Amino acid sequence: MGRHLLKACVAAALLSAALSAFATEASRPRARDAGIVIGTLQPGPRNALVDVPGVQVGHATVIEGDAVRTGVTAIVPHPGDLFRERVPAAIVVGNGFGKLLGVTQVQELGELETPILLAGTLGVWRAADALVERQLALPGMEQVRSINPVVGETNDGYLNDIRARPLRAEHVRAALDGASTGNVDEGSIGAGTGTIAFGWKGGIGTSSRRIAPDAGGYTVGVLVQSNFGGRLTIAGVPVGDALPDPQAYLALAPDAAPPSTGDGSIMIVVATDAPLDDRLLRRLATRALIGLGRTGASMSNGSGDYVIAFSTAPGVRRATDAVTHRVEVLSNDAMTPLFVAVADATEEAILNSMFRATTVSGHQGTVPALPLELVLPMLRQSNVQTPATP
Amino acid sequence: MGRHLLKACVAAALLSAALSAFATEASRPRARDAGIVIGTLQPGPRNALVDVPGVQVGHATVIEGDAVRTGVTAIVPHPGDLFRERVPAAIVVGNGFGKLLGVTQVQELGELETPILLAGTLGVWRAADALVERQLALPGMEQVRSINPVVGETNDGYLNDIRARPLRAEHVRAALDGASTGNVDEGSIGAGTGTIAFGWKGGIGTSSRRIAPDAGGYTVGVLVQSNFGGRLTIAGVPVGDALPDPQAYLALAPDAAPPSTGDGSIMIVVATDAPLDDRLLRRLATRALIGLGRTGASMSNGSGDYVIAFSTAPGVRRATDAVTHRVEVLSNDAMTPLFVAVADATEEAILNSMFRATTVSGHQGTVPALPLELVLPMLRQSNVQTPATP
Amino acid sequence: MGRHLLKACVAAALLSAALSAFATEASRPRARDAGIVIGTLQPGPRNALVDVPGVQVGHATVIEGDAVRTGVTAIVPHPGDLFRERVPAAIVVGNGFGKLLGVTQVQELGELETPILLAGTLGVWRAADALVERQLALPGMEQVRSINPVVGETNDGYLNDIRARPLRAEHVRAALDGASTGNVDEGSIGAGTGTIAFGWKGGIGTSSRRIAPDAGGYTVGVLVQSNFGGRLTIAGVPVGDALPDPQAYLALAPDAAPPSTGDGSIMIVVATDAPLDDRLLRRLATRALIGLGRTGASMSNGSGDYVIAFSTAPGVRRATDAVTHRVEVLSNDAMTPLFVAVADATEEAILNSMFRATTVSGHQGTVPALPLELVLPMLRQSNVQTPATP
Amino acid sequence: MGRHLLKACVAAALLSAALSAFATEASRPRARDAGIVIGTLQPGPRNALVDVPGVQVGHATVIEGDAVRTGVTAIVPHPGDLFRERVPAAIVVGNGFGKLLGVTQVQELGELETPILLAGTLGVWRAADALVERQLALPGMEQVRSINPVVGETNDGYLNDIRARPLRAEHVRAALDGASTGNVDEGSIGAGTGTIAFGWKGGIGTSSRRIAPDAGGYTVGVLVQSNFGGRLTIAGVPVGDALPDPQAYLALAPDAAPPSTGDGSIMIVVATDAPLDDRLLRRLATRALIGLGRTGASMSNGSGDYVIAFSTAPGVRRATDAVTHRVEVLSNDAMTPLFVAVADATEEAILNSMFRATTVSGHQGTVPALPLELVLPMLRQSNVQTPATP
Repeated sequence: MGRHLLKACVAAALLSAALSAFATEASRPRARDAGIVIGTLQPGPRNALVDVPGVQVGHATVIEGDAVRTGVTAIVPHPGDLFRERVPAAIVVGNGFGKLLGVTQVQELGELETPILLAGTLGVWRAADALVERQLALPGMEQVRSINPVVGETNDGYLNDIRARPLRAEHVRAALDGASTGNVDEGSIGAGTGTIAFGWKGGIGTSSRRIAPDAGGYTVGVLVQSNFGGRLTIAGVPVGDALPDPQAYLALAPDAAPPSTGDGSIMIVVATDAPLDDRLLRRLATRALIGLGRTGASMSNGSGDYVIAFSTAPGVRRATDAVTHRVEVLSNDAMTPLFVAVADATEEAILNSMFRATTVSGHQGTVPALPLELVLPMLRQSNVQTPATP
Repeated sequence: MGRHLLKACVAAALLSAALSAFATEASRPRARDAGIVIGTLQPGPRNALVDVPGVQVGHATVIEGDAVRTGVTAIVPHPGDLFRERVPAAIVVGNGFGKLLGVTQVQELGELETPILLAGTLGVWRAADALVERQLALPGMEQVRSINPVVGETNDGYLNDIRARPLRAEHVRAALDGASTGNVDEGSIGAGTGTIAFGWKGGIGTSSRRIAPDAGGYTVGVLVQSNFGGRLTIAGVPVGDALPDPQAYLALAPDAAPPSTGDGSIMIVVATDAPLDDRLLRRLATRALIGLGRTGASMSNGSGDYVIAFSTAPGVRRATDAVTHRVEVLSNDAMTPLFVAVADATEEAILNSMFRATTVSGHQGTVPALPLELVLPMLRQSNVQTPATP
Repeated sequence: MGRHLLKACVAAALLSAALSAFATEASRPRARDAGIVIGTLQPGPRNALVDVPGVQVGHATVIEGDAVRTGVTAIVPHPGDLFRERVPAAIVVGNGFGKLLGVTQVQELGELETPILLAGTLGVWRAADALVERQLALPGMEQVRSINPVVGETNDGYLNDIRARPLRAEHVRAALDGASTGNVDEGSIGAGTGTIAFGWKGGIGTSSRRIAPDAGGYTVGVLVQSNFGGRLTIAGVPVGDALPDPQAYLALAPDAAPPSTGDGSIMIVVATDAPLDDRLLRRLATRALIGLGRTGASMSNGSGDYVIAFSTAPGVRRATDAVTHRVEVLSNDAMTPLFVAVADATEEAILNSMFRATTVSGHQGTVPALPLELVLPMLRQSNVQTPATP
Repeated sequence: MGRHLLKACVAAALLSAALSAFATEASRPRARDAGIVIGTLQPGPRNALVDVPGVQVGHATVIEGDAVRTGVTAIVPHPGDLFRERVPAAIVVGNGFGKLLGVTQVQELGELETPILLAGTLGVWRAADALVERQLALPGMEQVRSINPVVGETNDGYLNDIRARPLRAEHVRAALDGASTGNVDEGSIGAGTGTIAFGWKGGIGTSSRRIAPDAGGYTVGVLVQSNFGGRLTIAGVPVGDALPDPQAYLALAPDAAPPSTGDGSIMIVVATDAPLDDRLLRRLATRALIGLGRTGASMSNGSGDYVIAFSTAPGVRRATDAVTHRVEVLSNDAMTPLFVAVADATEEAILNSMFRATTVSGHQGTVPALPLELVLPMLRQSNVQTPATP
């Protein structure tokens, strides 16, 4: 029982895929709106990284001609002077096959001094250079001669002509200038424009959780740039086993092409207003990988899987002109609810990145959006609560 | 839909729990025998750590009076001279709140020189002492003045009078002397005698996977000592949400008592015949934590979560009298199938530890076995393939 | 010039070695008392670990028959309840070929919950067991079921019959019970009873530094158990090149015997009253290895070289019943003077361990004390300030 | 005695400083040529990184107008296809306050796939971008979509107008195109053009050691970019205590200016033909920090101190098209002579960087070359063998 029925379900659904109700961005729900609930904690009001007060997110999407499908996403930890009012931070490496810039200084000093950027693999150095250029030009930065940009990446080289290296300084500035505390756009946008997850279109996704008031009532927000592989598992259901190969699925559409088999990467950014120092943030970041694993990843050899976590709590912020910092930090014992929160929010953020991503054609072919018309019935079949298909 | 039905199912099942068909050890199936399949790779012939040729496992179970419920489990990497023919090894720390002994030398030299022992928290130092005593007394060891015992633990202090520290050298010797390449007993045995997982009885569990012949055909075996908490999830189904509290469940039985709420720990031992050096073993061990996360763990603050991995491949073994080692090791690119294997085998080993564990009464109360009469219907309800309840 | 003169100096001095003015413990000066000044910072009043207020040190020396030459040294971070008022701590591994117990929990939680013990290699597990026994029996510890003893070691297997494993629980209790904030005995005592450094007698040594008042006026104290090798260098002068082989030197004495060539280990314990959290303590501990290197060590393969650092500042202490900790910690920028202090104090503590150590005969032979009657003239020759030989 | 005499010596020497025999590059000896011998092992034929067969070094020096004083230095591990015939490699962080690019991939995969570049702090991202551009354009690289440039830096922001960020792609190409296995230029050149060490002019320095034939006869080469501070110590003699402040020294010259007090950084590149895998290279790299410490560094807070080590042994090279690698690697036990070698070569390379560096005037002032006319007499005074001053 079960798997056989799912396959039959798939076969039927393929007939109507080209007419899918989920083909346009406007029609694609977030996972929770499709009735998929991860864990038992409640999300924040926007179910997004920006539920952590003060955190801003901005995207610049770079689409040029037939082959350029890339972009950059900026995460700004707080609206003040990031260089002088530093947030404690940690970076955890799930699998280090990636080009993340700025790692050792964050690990040594335990703090961020710039916004975080996400980009495509071969664009990180130019993105960092542009970020440095911009930050050094800010008022009050005239005497600064050292700065540590943190720039992560995943490889969008199937949909994007990555060797042409189309990312330019103006795109970085646009993402930073456009960063806001408002809703976070998801899917095939910004640094997620050209990414692929489990053979389907990946992208930017976000989610958040609030822990119980008697545990502090803190918020944990997560934003991902999904570009990895494995055995796609949604709310515990290995839907990847029963879905058609994305290539076969695409064959229904006129512009079918062989999809990439690259095993990709994921960047995970975690923010919290819980008062955590860098060690506690390292512990928190480690648990984001639990959420990654629940979506079916095994952190394959070629995947650069990283977590960057920071705390926005004013009580742990570090003024650069202070000799000592008076901080109030959580105890080790109080961490467990936050660990649950970050694992669940990471899992949901990954799902959102795929639920909201739309089909993209580019450099080497087309990558279809996750076929929700097939996925949602499977989830209902497996007793995962979902509303009726629209 | 779904959750409501499960709760009704639970209510009905509670009436018959005391008469459960799964009350005795003989009647408790392993997860796979109950129709639960984790991942798509096939297990080895015994679906156990000992599917990796040469690896031996032995248990000593220590049950004394009403309050002593502990034991020791020994893993012997190969039948030869472990001190002079060393296996490459790695230790990965998921959450370091534990007393694992021998860590830094394994990380520095990349090798094991003794068997591995698992025990209860406050027994590790005596276990290590007994292991050292025994190994130094072996033929050919007369001149050895330094040896690095690797001994892990989880805290069995609810069922076991841990402060009495009942583990003695004779138990360690018994576990080592009884180690064999035969079937591995699971559940409430050896170092799993007194452990608790998700509020139910945990213990020793094991599983294995073989990767495809064209990927090398290697075997990955896993053995766990489960003693942790979280949101119990079986094959993706969060059955823990719908199960009764173990205390409520126990109320049906005459010896009901408040169960522990400790968040515990897990020791995970990974063996493989794939020719991996210590760095590749470290990468492999990291992925065991993915399997842990899939069972509902979030590596809570108080949990000491560790993975010890070693390779038995003769081609990577290190003779202590050699100036250079000629080894043949896998490339980085060939690792991904092994990563999938270790995550899946870890998940299944944890399930086996609970499926096979029987109810144990001890020091501070009783911890019931996982009520399979409730769990299996839930899994069928969620479309996870299981045979009919016996 | 130079080296030739030193060698002539050595030849002459050998004639009088048996009658050396430095043959008895009372006559052996500490390095600073012999005019050797390391660095430019001033030591604290006792030039010892105990200059950090509240820190206590105790020794138990175990000498039995002809072959037992070992012991245990205890460091108690503060006089209060160590388990409930925890000090932040860090452990840094220079070379991990050692059996240091308790590492991962200190690294994960960033704190100590017991005293620190130093012992001989094959005695660490019994020492840990005895420490646990004692701590669990303290008032208020009745409900504690998990505790993380930190026990380091170096290998005293040349002078001590290490395989007989003579260390017993009573020795551990004696060291702990005798710990005080008074002067720290150095040399062939406690855990230094049987150790060897650079082929000469090593042992326990200690030193301290105070940083400038305008940098905070903090104290850094260091205690070492020296048992390592290399090219003995004192205040920058490679005296080891010109000294006789310890075996040749011993030939003047009636009980000459071949000395050990083992490359040994070193345990370095660092305390400070500077308000450092665990990350800053990790940074501090790393610099102790700089001091080690200046004595001529290259952290040889067989050497287990570890640093354990903790802060006694009340403002960073962690009450176990608190949900948050209000702490005041130094900024990164304020660390440099402490880095200089710990490197210099470590170098001087190592010198003290050898200057104060007396000749010891034991299990496999005799290890002579560093021949100060040869060393001090060499240092004068190299323009290192020393007073006239008495 | 001693220090007083040195100070008198300094006073006298200051009178003749402007006429120093060491004012021009041609007249400045390497440390060994000035009679300073570090350790007891012999250097290779050129006493340079390039004594390791196949290793190439190239410099591009960028001097423009009054304010641009920077450059780039390239290290090429072997003359073949670096991307497809990878050398095992390791990166060790002494103090992570730096922008070193490429760290996590080297640590995860244990290998290099590009040349290594050294540059100024704010130039690393453009240098990496240029390196990527060049490597992707090489024959056979047409399909490569991911590459991990390793680029280190120190901060040359006193002599160089670092905020103008003058480093361009053409400089990177020039350094790479000019790389050769010939002699390595040292001092104020390439990435050392604008660096400062101990307040004096730093720069590029190199040295090598050969271990004994019966230990394998391997060569260890080191190249440094020195830009750090501390208490300058040469061959164990703390000459920094007795030297004038560089500012006072400069007052004798017409263009005196306040020198920088920045505490800087150091990049250390280690090559060896010993057959080491990445773990052994990590162990080797750790010991380079011992050599750093012996020159008087305490790895101050603001210093980014890194070691990158690789092995050129053909027997450990990794072909990217191989499923397994047959390698022959040294045993742990055979490492100690290499540890001694790398510490000594690092110490001497740092001395060479200062001995060979000439006075440079630039952006914010002038930094004088180390006044050898003062230093060498001090060393003779301290019994360090040196020839008569020319």
